[in-house]
Amino acid sequence: MSARLGLVTLGVSDVPASRRFYEALGFRASAASQGDVVFFAGPGPILALYPRARLAEDAGLPPGGAGFGGVALAINVADEAEVDALIATALGAGAQALRPAGRVFWGGYSGYFADPDGHVWEVAHNPFFPLDADGLPRLPA
Amino acid sequence: MSARLGLVTLGVSDVPASRRFYEALGFRASAASQGDVVFFAGPGPILALYPRARLAEDAGLPPGGAGFGGVALAINVADEAEVDALIATALGAGAQALRPAGRVFWGGYSGYFADPDGHVWEVAHNPFFPLDADGLPRLPA
Repeated sequence: MSARLGLVTLGVSDVPASRRFYEALGFRASAASQGDVVFFAGPGPILALYPRARLAEDAGLPPGGAGFGGVALAINVADEAEVDALIATALGAGAQALRPAGRVFWGGYSGYFADPDGHVWEVAHNPFFPLDADGLPRLPA
Repeated sequence: MSARLGLVTLGVSDVPASRRFYEALGFRASAASQGDVVFFAGPGPILALYPRARLAEDAGLPPGGAGFGGVALAINVADEAEVDALIATALGAGAQALRPAGRVFWGGYSGYFADPDGHVWEVAHNPFFPLDADGLPRLPA
């Protein structure tokens, strides 16, 4: 058995507002979206939005939580200028600035923002992870 | 500009232990892994492990956090028996049981577990999201 990460769901407080936020970043909602669930189709894994309290309920967890959730999502782009441009777009769409973009110790260029619910996103140019035809980073096996 | 989710990093307290946990689930570490970062290569998005405190520092956030982080990661599998089998494998490897697997309101079959750091995973069979040749769920545009 070989497990693959296929879908990431973000629990959010206002699904339509978050849908607009992610559409401003360039994600396109799939026709499979319905009611209070939004699916952004690939290439790449599916990104889904769902009300936070219902996501906790679905997982069988209490909904409360605070502070850093320990997860960072990343968008890899082709060069440093695209990092700056995408972070500017996110901030213009209502993101909160976290670490400003800059050269980082591992040899790339990246910065972070938080979405309207505090979900942590990195935008990175990693010269060691070339992007494939779908714009997704590819690793050696 | 079209943004794609390319990489998900989980902040963990013990990288070698978490690497063993995810390898038990069937994830295979890429040769790009080094030091205290582990990359599980595709198909699908890259899943990475990194010390939680250093991930918070990289994002420019205080490391503290508690309770539900508002994110659920999902592995989609081909049938109900695979859901049960993968959850059993995860529990055997040290996962904490969350909601037991069962039929769900949206017409599929799923259950949840938490990894050793509390990261929330769903294992799902979704008859409406067929798996492609790489074993990844595909949505209509």
